[in-house]
Amino acid sequence: MSAANHLLCKIVYKARKRKIMNHRDFMRKAIELAVENVENGGGPFGAVIVKNGEIVATGVNRVTPNNDPTAHAEVCAIRAACTKLGTFDLSGCVIYTSCEPCPMCLGAIYWAHIDKIFYGANQHDAAAVNFDDSFIYRELEHKPEERHKPIENILHKEAQAPFNAWREKGDKVEY
Amino acid sequence: MSAANHLLCKIVYKARKRKIMNHRDFMRKAIELAVENVENGGGPFGAVIVKNGEIVATGVNRVTPNNDPTAHAEVCAIRAACTKLGTFDLSGCVIYTSCEPCPMCLGAIYWAHIDKIFYGANQHDAAAVNFDDSFIYRELEHKPEERHKPIENILHKEAQAPFNAWREKGDKVEY
Repeated sequence: MSAANHLLCKIVYKARKRKIMNHRDFMRKAIELAVENVENGGGPFGAVIVKNGEIVATGVNRVTPNNDPTAHAEVCAIRAACTKLGTFDLSGCVIYTSCEPCPMCLGAIYWAHIDKIFYGANQHDAAAVNFDDSFIYRELEHKPEERHKPIENILHKEAQAPFNAWREKGDKVEY
Repeated sequence: MSAANHLLCKIVYKARKRKIMNHRDFMRKAIELAVENVENGGGPFGAVIVKNGEIVATGVNRVTPNNDPTAHAEVCAIRAACTKLGTFDLSGCVIYTSCEPCPMCLGAIYWAHIDKIFYGANQHDAAAVNFDDSFIYRELEHKPEERHKPIENILHKEAQAPFNAWREKGDKVEY
């Protein structure tokens, strides 16, 4: 084998070994995690966070086993990715989630500055198996005073104190 | 002192010792936690969760010190309350938050089934110190395809697999 051929073989071998994953591969991983999670006592949801074509972190729905109503797949994946990358800002990352994000997860994705969302199943598919977030979406469309869940404003003036402290703080970390 | 007087004194003493807190007291606690948290390197937000007139758990914004964009005061308080009570369902609880909840926290409050929300400062006060969630609120008003953050549906059919697994599972914990 010539030196050139040998080099070519090495490159092909390395590329195969470290298979370059595409959008569909990442989504399939999220779906696979969701299926496994049902077996492991969690909800049927999985998510994968990717940066520069590589998986940074994954998450699955652990609401009932962990007694944590915020432990949706996307929130768990965001928290894991931030821990791994040592940052609270996931700019440059993409999230692949087996199901369309609920309002809580969508909010988390915005706060984390994730660039783009890919989703598999949609909110109607989720509602068909009793994971219905359409009520929350509808509630968010209404003004606070028109929502079903009571919300009341008290001590508005006193509640400016934390913001005044924040304004005066010199070494604060903004986000 | 007569026996009746003695009993009355004991009742008054106990009531004073265990001061019955009202809505304003709980909100003042949330505000106080928010102010302290600024000193401790966190964001200017605090929250208190109350059940049967007693504080179950508290939370403060730890986004930047914990590298966790989901660590808003309300989310932290919900997670702490659920851990303490050993449940993912906070029905019967009320949340007092120093500032109007963002869409992520509002979603978390709905998923946790908290009965009522009291808030102090509002989203405009928060925006004035650069904590602006109005963009997220506006984004949620739009259909997914009309939002600024790109969102794309792929592998819709394959993504039904977790829901099929969920349907078939006999011993699942629904929520």
